[in-house]
Amino acid sequence: MAVNLNPPDPAKLLGVAGVELGSAEAGIRKRGRRDLMLMRLAAGSRVAAVFTQNSFAAAPVQVCRRHLAAGGVTRALVTNAGNANCGTGEAGVRAAERTCEAVARAIGCAPEEVLPFSTGVILEPLPVERIEAALPQCVAALGAANWADAAAAIMTTDTVPKAASRAAEIDGRRIAVTGIAKGVGMLQPDMATMLAYVATDCAVSQGALDRLVRDAAEASFHRVTVDGDTSTNDSFVLIATAKAGNRELSAAADPGYAALRRAVVEVAQELAQAIARDGEGATKLVTIRVAGAASEPEAVRVAKSIANSPLVKTAFFAADPNLGRLLMAIGNAGIAALDVSRVELWLGDVKVIERGGRAAGYRDEDGARVMRPAEIDVRVELGRGTAGTTVWTCDFSYDYVKINAEYRT
Amino acid sequence: MAVNLNPPDPAKLLGVAGVELGSAEAGIRKRGRRDLMLMRLAAGSRVAAVFTQNSFAAAPVQVCRRHLAAGGVTRALVTNAGNANCGTGEAGVRAAERTCEAVARAIGCAPEEVLPFSTGVILEPLPVERIEAALPQCVAALGAANWADAAAAIMTTDTVPKAASRAAEIDGRRIAVTGIAKGVGMLQPDMATMLAYVATDCAVSQGALDRLVRDAAEASFHRVTVDGDTSTNDSFVLIATAKAGNRELSAAADPGYAALRRAVVEVAQELAQAIARDGEGATKLVTIRVAGAASEPEAVRVAKSIANSPLVKTAFFAADPNLGRLLMAIGNAGIAALDVSRVELWLGDVKVIERGGRAAGYRDEDGARVMRPAEIDVRVELGRGTAGTTVWTCDFSYDYVKINAEYRT
Repeated sequence: MAVNLNPPDPAKLLGVAGVELGSAEAGIRKRGRRDLMLMRLAAGSRVAAVFTQNSFAAAPVQVCRRHLAAGGVTRALVTNAGNANCGTGEAGVRAAERTCEAVARAIGCAPEEVLPFSTGVILEPLPVERIEAALPQCVAALGAANWADAAAAIMTTDTVPKAASRAAEIDGRRIAVTGIAKGVGMLQPDMATMLAYVATDCAVSQGALDRLVRDAAEASFHRVTVDGDTSTNDSFVLIATAKAGNRELSAAADPGYAALRRAVVEVAQELAQAIARDGEGATKLVTIRVAGAASEPEAVRVAKSIANSPLVKTAFFAADPNLGRLLMAIGNAGIAALDVSRVELWLGDVKVIERGGRAAGYRDEDGARVMRPAEIDVRVELGRGTAGTTVWTCDFSYDYVKINAEYRT
Repeated sequence: MAVNLNPPDPAKLLGVAGVELGSAEAGIRKRGRRDLMLMRLAAGSRVAAVFTQNSFAAAPVQVCRRHLAAGGVTRALVTNAGNANCGTGEAGVRAAERTCEAVARAIGCAPEEVLPFSTGVILEPLPVERIEAALPQCVAALGAANWADAAAAIMTTDTVPKAASRAAEIDGRRIAVTGIAKGVGMLQPDMATMLAYVATDCAVSQGALDRLVRDAAEASFHRVTVDGDTSTNDSFVLIATAKAGNRELSAAADPGYAALRRAVVEVAQELAQAIARDGEGATKLVTIRVAGAASEPEAVRVAKSIANSPLVKTAFFAADPNLGRLLMAIGNAGIAALDVSRVELWLGDVKVIERGGRAAGYRDEDGARVMRPAEIDVRVELGRGTAGTTVWTCDFSYDYVKINAEYRT
């Protein structure tokens, strides 16, 4: 059901020197499906990460934050699908720690050098002994070419694995950037939910990496919404193994940093769009561009007010150019002193709203024509300034209700 | 499809001395259905009102605000269903003014003494000549006993007319409070949307009435949500005709004010709940009580985060006690430094969450039992303070998508 989204071609995903991946069937999610994924990082790798803002941060998120705050090195990431280990209290934290200890034993590092991730049902105890039992198979399977397999192993209600690669040239060296992610609602909580790992062999300072993970998240995962909810487990990790042999990038002013940034942002955006394309029940990918805002946060508020309105989303599903709903959603963004007479809106190449009302030349059949394809562009001009943003979302179909009403049954 | 909601019994609605209502078929909404309603107020009546916060306030809302700001008297309210007169620019404002002029001619008052209201499709020109043509029938039909007919005439996608009455005794006089409202999504925009009129024969000062309309809105219409969207036309008007013969209430300290407040709030709450019961596609009425908050706005944020989450709403539809979604919604309310270990949650009489996780004695079959009835109570204890609130909402069903995807076709 995903919108113009095919499984990744393993031959087109670039290996990242210093990163090996292996997966196995731990029996957490369902039988006959790999649900445990180990990513081993070479010595000297650096990582930076951003996590959910939900107050109920899951146990693995708490442990990740602690391990990263300790400032040591990271040698492995371990991810299980099928159980989020969230709302599980102290026992859940202990289960995440036990997972790290098992990985540490298996690959020979300290438990604090392991980052744990979980995605799946909330409030169920994590069957950590199944993870412990299956870890040796992950270790045995470790290989640099397993990105597509790894993308499949972390899926929950995703219908298509999500992976992307870009290459860049820095210092005369070819740099690889490869990432995987799972959704499906970025923000769908009881398959708690978005995990994304992007790795590069570029050598980059910790400060530059910390900045890049935030910049890339802002330009990608923070700009996708399926239903406006934010998961308890959302995590985005950026890994740099320093194996490419370039001189270490240390500042945003470094010309190499711009090349790295472009490659990382493109991978993150492709993954973020893949999440929207595979949103629960999605039949359309909707790209919302807001321009002419007084600030970027203002542009984001308007774009997300459109993207999260159930009424707008059902109209996209119906291919109904329901201008009133678009107007309403802009008006609901809480923009103080918005001069509606300056607001303009296009669907694809059709101007539908001008001076705060229906555009003079607008005909319903033109609106219906541009709403019909599986990918729809919405462009809003606020007439207040020069800031803007882009947000991706999907439509709201019968299947969204079906998936979420029948999920546990 | 409305949840435990019957049409009002005209015999049980109290007339309000000084208020006459009449309706007619203007042919705006559809054939064979009254869609124009005139409410005439006796000389000496006072009104107070609250309106939508949407930036695209509809033309009639703009005209209402202007007429009320002028500080004169109000002698009539006129409402059409089927067309919201929103996003219609200067022509729309002129159409609303022409409506007022027609009413003024018909009943003998100044145009500024008329308040216009519209509800229905956005961005379509208001066929004001049909209103002008049908107004004489409204005038001919004016009568004090027509509250139920008036409630039916203002409906759009509502499936049941909404009206409520309460009596109070003030100064030894019997005071009547009667109101009508239409939804259906309070906040459903392209049938732009919530209108509520509550009238009393009580004598009350303008200052006390202005305060009461805000207090009553806070305790009722501002606590209902169907889909989180806010209409461009939302209006709540409180009318006091001063015909009951009581000494004018002028201050909140007056013991009579408490009695009036109670009656008005009860009528407003019954109407607000009726809107949730008749929410688009609703199969359940969900009452969410939040206690132990540091402030009332904080309690409202938590309650609305639960009430507006599409994932929580689909779980209510499925009668699935999906605790993870409830946890997630609380965590998403943006409450700084929320200590999740103090959060508790009940579904009906079943404690489902304690210390931020699944309650020790909780069994899924108990959760399923309390999710099955058509009316569900959710109670949250935040453990932060003594403030609280109550919010009403409905579930999210296939029919919500159906109604909103197929509305214009």
